[in-house]
Amino acid sequence: MAWNTDETKRRLKQAAVEEFSSFGLAGARVDRIAERAGINKERIYGYFGNKEQLFATVLRDELSQAAEAVPMAMKTSEDIAQIAGHAFDYHEAHLHFARLLHWEALAYGENPVPDEQGRGQYYQDKVSAFSAAQDRALIASTPDADQLVFMVLALAAWWFAVPQVARMLSGPITDPQAERARRRAAVVEAARRLADPAHETPAGLDRRVKRAPVGVRRDADAGEQVLA
Amino acid sequence: MAWNTDETKRRLKQAAVEEFSSFGLAGARVDRIAERAGINKERIYGYFGNKEQLFATVLRDELSQAAEAVPMAMKTSEDIAQIAGHAFDYHEAHLHFARLLHWEALAYGENPVPDEQGRGQYYQDKVSAFSAAQDRALIASTPDADQLVFMVLALAAWWFAVPQVARMLSGPITDPQAERARRRAAVVEAARRLADPAHETPAGLDRRVKRAPVGVRRDADAGEQVLA
Repeated sequence: MAWNTDETKRRLKQAAVEEFSSFGLAGARVDRIAERAGINKERIYGYFGNKEQLFATVLRDELSQAAEAVPMAMKTSEDIAQIAGHAFDYHEAHLHFARLLHWEALAYGENPVPDEQGRGQYYQDKVSAFSAAQDRALIASTPDADQLVFMVLALAAWWFAVPQVARMLSGPITDPQAERARRRAAVVEAARRLADPAHETPAGLDRRVKRAPVGVRRDADAGEQVLA
Repeated sequence: MAWNTDETKRRLKQAAVEEFSSFGLAGARVDRIAERAGINKERIYGYFGNKEQLFATVLRDELSQAAEAVPMAMKTSEDIAQIAGHAFDYHEAHLHFARLLHWEALAYGENPVPDEQGRGQYYQDKVSAFSAAQDRALIASTPDADQLVFMVLALAAWWFAVPQVARMLSGPITDPQAERARRRAAVVEAARRLADPAHETPAGLDRRVKRAPVGVRRDADAGEQVLA
């Protein structure tokens, strides 16, 4: 097999995902990442810089993949429930993703994480999608779009963040498939309630009117009407 | 100062909270805990057993304190919003609590944690309180009470679990007090919507009727009426 830079980087990043997911930023060892990948560890420093920079690269890649897998654009009010369900599915299928985010939070605490601004772009796309849905009265106009995204993600991800708490609340799991379906249904319904466009407040209405694009009149009950 | 067992244990546990919160289960060192406490490390093994057992003891204590600080009994429909707000306040004032839960989740993954059944009692009290509130139609009859508790805790805790994600969604924090108030208000409103007793489903109604205590007729609009 011909060896090339892209393939080397891919193998190193894959090995890094496994190592960081298992041991966190402090516990991970560059030696072991190189060994897992079967590639000389000098390559890691050459391609990615130090361990912290490799961790940041891995998180950025993971975030990019998650953003692609769970698009957040909405066409109907029901879409937010589907988004919550997909986010739940994604976390379940990629347990290492939440682990990486938690290791990062534990490592950096309230301090900025590397590449925070660069990675922020993936989150800004989600906020824009929710904000557009608010403008179209597809979802509740409050709380702010960034907070709605955050809370929908919280509802979807928390089961995988603290599975021991879920078990202590619900008891030991005897039927994993049934429990999984029960959890997913709860998340979907919770997102639906959280963002129900029937929740309208004076502050939300006022902001919505201010944000409405020219030529479109806001009417919470009738949806959008293009003014003649 | 007279030295006694209770005071020694208290100092060791306090030092253990700090050590585990900073470094997690794998990263914590019994040596450092003894040093922080100014107590011989043989005492740790004598009182608490090994490092894992000390970690479990610390988590049980923390959980007991949290349960006492945020009681979950409800008298009105609005109480759930207050509970969510208090849970938010508690997590903010005890950042190490969420950290300990996350370190634990990362250490044990999907495997049972030590003392899972013993610690479960604190969660069962919460579930009982929510279930009683469902029976009295103070909160929505669906999802199940254990899931409602879990999701309210998710909404309150997620900000402290992944603060970097909150920042990437909302942008850098320029006014911490204002941002804090905005977050808390969002959590309170989200819990209100999630558990709004207006959310009634045929399955929930059916279950509620079956659970209603003898002599009490369920009426979602009028509250409880004792039958003559």
